[in-house]
Amino acid sequence: MQNIVKPRIMSGFMELMPREQVIFDNMKDTIKKVFTLNGFTPLDTPVLELSEVLLAKAGGETEKQIYRFTRGDTDMSLRFDLTVPLARYVAMHQADLNFPFKRFHIAKSYRGERSQKGRFREFYQCDADIIGENELSVVADAECISLIYKVYSQLNIDDIEIRISNRKILTGLMQMYNVNKTGEVLHVLDKFGKMSNEDIIKLIVDLGEPEKTATDIVNLLSCDVSKEQKLEMLEAMPNKNEVFMFGISELKQVFEALDNMGVPQKFYKLDTTIIRGLDYYTGTIFETKLLSHLEFGSIGGGGRYDNLAGNFTKNKLVGVGVSFGLTRLFDCLMKNDMLSNQKVHEPKVAIIPLGNTLKPCLELSNDIISNGVSCTVLYENKSFKSKLNYANKQEIPFVIIIGEDEVKNNSYVLKNMFEGTQQSLDKQTLIENLKKVN
Amino acid sequence: MQNIVKPRIMSGFMELMPREQVIFDNMKDTIKKVFTLNGFTPLDTPVLELSEVLLAKAGGETEKQIYRFTRGDTDMSLRFDLTVPLARYVAMHQADLNFPFKRFHIAKSYRGERSQKGRFREFYQCDADIIGENELSVVADAECISLIYKVYSQLNIDDIEIRISNRKILTGLMQMYNVNKTGEVLHVLDKFGKMSNEDIIKLIVDLGEPEKTATDIVNLLSCDVSKEQKLEMLEAMPNKNEVFMFGISELKQVFEALDNMGVPQKFYKLDTTIIRGLDYYTGTIFETKLLSHLEFGSIGGGGRYDNLAGNFTKNKLVGVGVSFGLTRLFDCLMKNDMLSNQKVHEPKVAIIPLGNTLKPCLELSNDIISNGVSCTVLYENKSFKSKLNYANKQEIPFVIIIGEDEVKNNSYVLKNMFEGTQQSLDKQTLIENLKKVN
Repeated sequence: MQNIVKPRIMSGFMELMPREQVIFDNMKDTIKKVFTLNGFTPLDTPVLELSEVLLAKAGGETEKQIYRFTRGDTDMSLRFDLTVPLARYVAMHQADLNFPFKRFHIAKSYRGERSQKGRFREFYQCDADIIGENELSVVADAECISLIYKVYSQLNIDDIEIRISNRKILTGLMQMYNVNKTGEVLHVLDKFGKMSNEDIIKLIVDLGEPEKTATDIVNLLSCDVSKEQKLEMLEAMPNKNEVFMFGISELKQVFEALDNMGVPQKFYKLDTTIIRGLDYYTGTIFETKLLSHLEFGSIGGGGRYDNLAGNFTKNKLVGVGVSFGLTRLFDCLMKNDMLSNQKVHEPKVAIIPLGNTLKPCLELSNDIISNGVSCTVLYENKSFKSKLNYANKQEIPFVIIIGEDEVKNNSYVLKNMFEGTQQSLDKQTLIENLKKVN
Repeated sequence: MQNIVKPRIMSGFMELMPREQVIFDNMKDTIKKVFTLNGFTPLDTPVLELSEVLLAKAGGETEKQIYRFTRGDTDMSLRFDLTVPLARYVAMHQADLNFPFKRFHIAKSYRGERSQKGRFREFYQCDADIIGENELSVVADAECISLIYKVYSQLNIDDIEIRISNRKILTGLMQMYNVNKTGEVLHVLDKFGKMSNEDIIKLIVDLGEPEKTATDIVNLLSCDVSKEQKLEMLEAMPNKNEVFMFGISELKQVFEALDNMGVPQKFYKLDTTIIRGLDYYTGTIFETKLLSHLEFGSIGGGGRYDNLAGNFTKNKLVGVGVSFGLTRLFDCLMKNDMLSNQKVHEPKVAIIPLGNTLKPCLELSNDIISNGVSCTVLYENKSFKSKLNYANKQEIPFVIIIGEDEVKNNSYVLKNMFEGTQQSLDKQTLIENLKKVN
């Protein structure tokens, strides 16, 4: 007798039932389609890379979370994001790539985090980036932001708010106020929304800054007004330095381009409380909230970086990117019952043979499939009732039952399983009707 | 100054340039579409699994090749195929699945083989399987075989030959000839095509079988005649036992179903020299050769197994599956220059602004994209010539150059970059023309 191992997966790894998987794949395909239509081409890189390459820059939390191991003499790791592989790829192939290089990458990454609510150790990231040599128009920033609107619009999720800011505003502000511990202060400012303004001011004062400085900065950044008013406030600042003014100018260009790209103004705002980590981004930054479910966190964000591949090349590669965390998003939507309205009826048609009609059933199925409609023949040696149950459980929208009379008379009964109706049709009309279904 | 790490990947891992990647992804999408149209739904399982689960059955070569490591107390491995995860999944969720369960899975697997020509350590497998509880019609076997024809037909590769046999023929034959060392003899028979018939006979004799037995078996199995003649030969055998006759009967049913499914007879044959490994398959077996490139090896194969998940459950799960090794296939096609005729023109349209026309360019791009045609705006602050070079290098089929006059007169020049022609069109006609391009 065989030894039986209990079938199970590790915690922190998502695995779906077939119906859920169809919805997940539809979402993934939608994102891929938006990326492709907007001129991004696909990239696929190895999941396993040399640790020396993958960890060229990393450190701290990332390094602790990574799945790293040795095989033979080789120290290798599972990628923890899609950005380091992109940097490595562009540095390797710079001479052969066409810049600006617009690539998308939809694939799994790995972080061995402590398993907690909403965190996955294996997760799909859907990234689109535009990489330039030495320079890249700020219109590219708007293009990445527009992808967020386009993706959610295609997913029929419309209560999103894209929050846009620019790191140059923050950098400029720190200089304008002669802040000493810039890094630490930005780290504190990263707590907006998780902590009260008063507490943030207190922490900045604790870092040695004057109370007026702390209060001014916090009030300016957190003041929640329209983007026109906010831009006016920023422009009215005394002692504006060059980097601060660059930030304002870039924001204006991004907003104008978003208008021209057809992104409705109601879907985005200027929000100077967003920081998005400390050392990566250098210009435009953005993140997205679902207004009905702020607890989901950011459901799509990214920004501009001035030195993508500094660990791999001396050449200056600048870029801007957007990333969707699909696994977590799907998990949030599923747990909040926000996917039950999704159409997941695959296959579209089931054919049930009655009597000695396997041959015409297989032939009809082949005709239906050739016309681009998914179809399955329930040819198992089982009862008619169990086959109807199968079609019901699988939520197959159309069932065709074929007995010998149907074949003889070229008259096929097409049952609409959702509406409970049925029609008698000749083969040609039947196929024409099904072609309209998709 | 930053420390620069040489950007590189490990040997045995495929990574493509953007144009090649588009072709690869198109092939992957084609296979996915064939699977979906034929009523298979997607499955996605973790790349990392517990070693205890993944290696419940494995041993020998597989176990040596696996990427296995420990993190904390957990012994985990990268999957080496998609079949063990399928078995684990079906055993875990049997109560909730709808049988027959038709799933496809297109994803990467990992084997740390010695890097050699045409072998990859990370490779895409494209698997479709049909799983039944306790029993499954032999029509399912034909359905899996038909997928090979449909996939290659969609990929416009038409010199394929699907070689079909049945393990019951072999099992029966061994019993009919009272062969003692069945396993060893089958292992020798697995050398058909790699070794001469004389050498195979010699090896069987060396195992202790009479020369007449060895000669009879080898001559019967290797005799290359039409499937009708071969079936006659098999049926004319004296002392046919039950399992042998089952094998003949299943072969006949498979051939009949393939006919009914519209698979032309010229694409398959009965070939009793195929064995496909020793202990996994129990009925129908098949593999596929590219006639113009036999050296590619099998480009799609599979078969029937009677006990999918014996390591995970006492329930009897029977199934049949087909698998395409996409990474190796793509590599073979690429190295033999068999992909250069592929259309990979993404995006379809590039718009070049001349003068102060960014706004109308972005608006037109948005209109084109909304109509389902991929488009990119070359908004970088670069020379006109460098932008045309970009479009050429990217092989973008259509370019629209927009100056202020074009906008004023609603007259846009659409350049066909391949034919070297151009037309002046109003915006609406332009978009209508582009919609026909895809």
